[in-house]
Amino acid sequence: MRKAGGDEGGGGSSKTAEQPEAKTPAGAALSKLSDTTIGPDWTKVSCPCCVSERVEPLVLVKLGEKVRPETKRWLIRVIGAPQKDGGAALLAHPGEEATGDIMVLSAPRCTLLKATEELGLCKTYRNGEMEAFSYNDRDNFKDSDNMEVFLTLAERQYIVKYELDGLRAQRDLRIPGLSDALQHRDNIWRKLGSAGVIVDTLPLHNPNQLKDLSEAWYAGNQLAQPLDSVNGYFGSSVAFYFSFLDFYTWSLLPPAILGLTITYFSGEVQKEMEESLSGSSATNDDESGPAVSGHMIQAVFSMLWSTVVMELWKRRSSSLSYRWGTMNLAERFAEPRPGFHGGLGVNPVTGRVEPLFPDWQRDLRIALVSIPVVGLFLGLVVLGMLCFYWGEAQVQELHRDWDSLLSQTLLYVPSVLHISYTNVLATVYRTVAKSLTEYENHREESAFENHLTAKVLVFTFFNYFAVLFHIAFFKQDVPLLRKRLASLLIITQLVNQVTEVVIPFLVDRFISAPHRTESEDDPQEDKFRNQSTLPTFPGLFAEYIELLVQFGYLSLFSCVFPLTAVLLLINNLTEIRTDAYKICKLFRKPFSPPAANMRVWQIAFEVLSFVSVVSNCWLLLLSPWLQKLFQEGGLSSTNVLLLAVLVEHVLILVKVVLAVLIPDEPDWVRKKREHIEFTSMQALREQKLHCEGS
Amino acid sequence: MRKAGGDEGGGGSSKTAEQPEAKTPAGAALSKLSDTTIGPDWTKVSCPCCVSERVEPLVLVKLGEKVRPETKRWLIRVIGAPQKDGGAALLAHPGEEATGDIMVLSAPRCTLLKATEELGLCKTYRNGEMEAFSYNDRDNFKDSDNMEVFLTLAERQYIVKYELDGLRAQRDLRIPGLSDALQHRDNIWRKLGSAGVIVDTLPLHNPNQLKDLSEAWYAGNQLAQPLDSVNGYFGSSVAFYFSFLDFYTWSLLPPAILGLTITYFSGEVQKEMEESLSGSSATNDDESGPAVSGHMIQAVFSMLWSTVVMELWKRRSSSLSYRWGTMNLAERFAEPRPGFHGGLGVNPVTGRVEPLFPDWQRDLRIALVSIPVVGLFLGLVVLGMLCFYWGEAQVQELHRDWDSLLSQTLLYVPSVLHISYTNVLATVYRTVAKSLTEYENHREESAFENHLTAKVLVFTFFNYFAVLFHIAFFKQDVPLLRKRLASLLIITQLVNQVTEVVIPFLVDRFISAPHRTESEDDPQEDKFRNQSTLPTFPGLFAEYIELLVQFGYLSLFSCVFPLTAVLLLINNLTEIRTDAYKICKLFRKPFSPPAANMRVWQIAFEVLSFVSVVSNCWLLLLSPWLQKLFQEGGLSSTNVLLLAVLVEHVLILVKVVLAVLIPDEPDWVRKKREHIEFTSMQALREQKLHCEGS
Repeated sequence: MRKAGGDEGGGGSSKTAEQPEAKTPAGAALSKLSDTTIGPDWTKVSCPCCVSERVEPLVLVKLGEKVRPETKRWLIRVIGAPQKDGGAALLAHPGEEATGDIMVLSAPRCTLLKATEELGLCKTYRNGEMEAFSYNDRDNFKDSDNMEVFLTLAERQYIVKYELDGLRAQRDLRIPGLSDALQHRDNIWRKLGSAGVIVDTLPLHNPNQLKDLSEAWYAGNQLAQPLDSVNGYFGSSVAFYFSFLDFYTWSLLPPAILGLTITYFSGEVQKEMEESLSGSSATNDDESGPAVSGHMIQAVFSMLWSTVVMELWKRRSSSLSYRWGTMNLAERFAEPRPGFHGGLGVNPVTGRVEPLFPDWQRDLRIALVSIPVVGLFLGLVVLGMLCFYWGEAQVQELHRDWDSLLSQTLLYVPSVLHISYTNVLATVYRTVAKSLTEYENHREESAFENHLTAKVLVFTFFNYFAVLFHIAFFKQDVPLLRKRLASLLIITQLVNQVTEVVIPFLVDRFISAPHRTESEDDPQEDKFRNQSTLPTFPGLFAEYIELLVQFGYLSLFSCVFPLTAVLLLINNLTEIRTDAYKICKLFRKPFSPPAANMRVWQIAFEVLSFVSVVSNCWLLLLSPWLQKLFQEGGLSSTNVLLLAVLVEHVLILVKVVLAVLIPDEPDWVRKKREHIEFTSMQALREQKLHCEGS
Repeated sequence: MRKAGGDEGGGGSSKTAEQPEAKTPAGAALSKLSDTTIGPDWTKVSCPCCVSERVEPLVLVKLGEKVRPETKRWLIRVIGAPQKDGGAALLAHPGEEATGDIMVLSAPRCTLLKATEELGLCKTYRNGEMEAFSYNDRDNFKDSDNMEVFLTLAERQYIVKYELDGLRAQRDLRIPGLSDALQHRDNIWRKLGSAGVIVDTLPLHNPNQLKDLSEAWYAGNQLAQPLDSVNGYFGSSVAFYFSFLDFYTWSLLPPAILGLTITYFSGEVQKEMEESLSGSSATNDDESGPAVSGHMIQAVFSMLWSTVVMELWKRRSSSLSYRWGTMNLAERFAEPRPGFHGGLGVNPVTGRVEPLFPDWQRDLRIALVSIPVVGLFLGLVVLGMLCFYWGEAQVQELHRDWDSLLSQTLLYVPSVLHISYTNVLATVYRTVAKSLTEYENHREESAFENHLTAKVLVFTFFNYFAVLFHIAFFKQDVPLLRKRLASLLIITQLVNQVTEVVIPFLVDRFISAPHRTESEDDPQEDKFRNQSTLPTFPGLFAEYIELLVQFGYLSLFSCVFPLTAVLLLINNLTEIRTDAYKICKLFRKPFSPPAANMRVWQIAFEVLSFVSVVSNCWLLLLSPWLQKLFQEGGLSSTNVLLLAVLVEHVLILVKVVLAVLIPDEPDWVRKKREHIEFTSMQALREQKLHCEGS
């Protein structure tokens, strides 16, 4: 347990803490705070093995403008104090002036290594295999003396944040220069944040690495992404997104080729294009036999394709997770997340004293509060849609009666109202979802993220697809669906690219950048400060949902518009570059916790792939060609329906069988994982006596 | 690695082996081979901590009649030799005469404890929690000095078998008195079995425990089964079967009550009974409104009920597994099963040298050999059914044309032919399935069992249900289905009870028993010998399949015959007693490996529960009442079908959601399991150096 405060007078800790204060007034050179800064300005390390020539600035902390010098001194002392005295055992640099509003943090070797063990990261053992890192056995791991090779930049920065988030008051105490008091076990970093002492905590870019990365990633014409470097620089959560984007884009090739071939051979290229671009619903009655079977092939192919792709991705994902050392994360055994609260008690799993919160109470909150509220919002979406349809009908009637300029303008009113209603609802919902998830009080950060993502996901998905489903299942109007789908595909992709990249780029170039001109001679601190003027990285939610919606268009409705895959392929090839550019240049570097997979997104994609069978079978059933064909074949509509149901069940069965038969991890990863489990079991047996508690 | 043979002259091992031979001619009393036998006749233990006053006879080995004394002496030496010298480190007793055809085996404390660790059993730690047993830490486990409390009888006996199965030749050697030679790493026990030296290896009954158990189990009128004692006496695989039988029987109460209520209130009791007993298909046209909704309630209820029951059973199963210490079995880290073969190599998981067999080769064998062969047999079942229908049609036509006594007899020919065809096919298939699974070369015993069970399961299931499905889906004849179902339920249950219990009981009482009269004065050895005259326990396959078929009748077709649950409940209440009687009295005691759940049966029940939705929705759709109702309501048949499909999808969705939402293990078990995982992770970290290999 890490606890803070207290030991004002206690030996080593107070000595190290006094250091910066004593030195900075003595005129330490400002340029010292660079990549090659040596000793003096940084807090001293108590542990002899961690003393190094060179301290790497990892994280920038921005303090409030009104923070008093004694508060900052106290803070630096706490950050530098060893963990047994309740500190974070990190290195702190007070910036140019001891009283300035920034601090730069780094971490000594021992802190990094201990946190690596706590997080459950795997690292290369001396025999070349990945093994769960063990602090006691550190000398047998490769490169464990050189932190900049042993841990990636993203890991080092995440560890600093992890230590800061873990700071807890060791007893009730006052923070110098602040009126608020800390109570026993209060989370110090959260408290300082809410008291306005700490405004921002952000990881710093490493300009050289960033330059290399961007050259390998999006500057040239390379086809493959440098995923290992992305993982090293931005962390595994980000790297998993880009890996999936990559994998998914390449796996679009088969359906794209098939779609092109079918469209070409059925001689429909021009018509499809015209239709999709002009939006006019051409009559489908004259379509010929081959097209029918082509569409059916396309539909069946895309249904099976989606399962195979998701299964193969799971295999790829598990081998990436082995490669990046995140296959054995120990989050559930670590300290709870900062926002977690509950009565103090002994954790039955780890034996540590920490806040506990009964699971049934969380389940109750989810069942009685979260689910009804989410349901209410989904109801509001449907209500909005109904109002929109009603409004549109009213307005059109009005327009037919009056036919004036005013009434023509009125025609747009329902759409505008509906769009703004949807947007307001989405914003409100996002806040509500966050508080709901906070209220559910999850112990682990990942559980929190998963529940929040799931909530927003359901809503966003509903929001995007409600209209399409309405057209497909209630209006049963295939041409309208096709028109809508084509326009959605083209328009939303254009809009997305513009809002996501072009606007931030323009803002950055012409509004922010002039205030941020950099030159070689600038003091290092100003360069750091510049980074904090960039907007915060909005997270990967929007990126993932974009992919999911794409995947939805493709798998749910592909049989009505076979060129979907082609359009998506083109979009994604640019998307990779723009996303890479965005995260490198337009935003602050994000903290990224180690991740073993795409978490809840994986499930979302898989669920969609099963829903797609139902939707495709239904759409095929609706298709006028097929109905005509069956009528000619002398089948009654009941029999056609029965046939469709049969086909649907068979396809679902095939998908389930495929999903079960394709192992979720490649054989070699399974063996490595089992080896890690075996080693851990062996270790338990070798132990003479159990470690009671920890 | 255990290896055998060799060290003829090596110190302690040869001394212990010489012992029995030296003593028995000197006239050791025959009665010494009793429960309280003291020292002399047993082989000596080399380990001082294992010397005990009392040796418990655990396993009887029956040798071939022509086995020469030197072979038996060699065998006893190998069994008694320590594991490092390639022996089994067990205790052996040569029986009355050194040259006789039986041996009695037991196991000393150290061997038992080491095997407990190897098997990955959990035992009570001194703090009262279950922990994975560790030999080094043995003194901290409760009762680890008293093997008869620490391990159950079933576990002790299984460990003896486990050690015997693990005997492997340490180098090429000749067995004295046999012409065959053993090659390096040959499995000794298998070799001796195929050479006719060893005829039988069977665990011995403990008469006192058996008496207590049978009194608590089936002799009285008690409602609850003594499951812990069953686990102790017969092992966890058997105990899991009886626990499931118990759980399933009680969970039949709700559908039985509902079925009775509905049948009673719709005033159909008499009719249903008459129909089911006389087999006459009453006209259903006059049935009234309430009955319709009653059947629908019954169907929907039973569809959801099956999921809830299976989920709750999983929870119960995991808490039983914790209670019985089998939650952390380490089979995949242990030695491969005796029949496993492959090139020698280093196992990448455990680092031990052992036979390896690539997974892809096994997958290939499954895909290219097993699946086609199984498919062929399923095809033969269908072919048989088609021939039967064709034959029946032919014969009936013939009968209509001729109408003589001969033609009336001919009417039965197709049925008789079909039944004998089915039986022959089933017997052949069972042999084929066994060789196929042997050919697939599974490494673990449980994998072998699972694959074998799955194969036989699919076939048996097909065999049982093909006709019913044919009636339901192709003939679409609900009254016939009802008739068939009722007769199947009643007849097969009667037949089963008779063949399973009454016949073995009669055979035992009137044919075998006269040759096996026991009296108190008999020498102990004859009592042991008597046990080997009982027939071998046929395993739980037939019992499980009976339950599965029941469950199938209930969940797949319950809506056509609402009294199914009532009949099953009555059957199962007697089934519990008869099964218990059977395993206690009519068969040899079986060896039972520790098991953590019902394995493949769990999956079979769950799959059935999903198939039931499809089948029930279809049957409801077929029901004449419903069709009439809809016609009156003015719905077209297409719309009715659409509605049914919608209902089906919603029900499947609800079942999936239920299955996901109900956790598979109770919270307290999850916490204990995570605690065990955490301890194991901690242990790994505490270790200074990794254990390379084992």
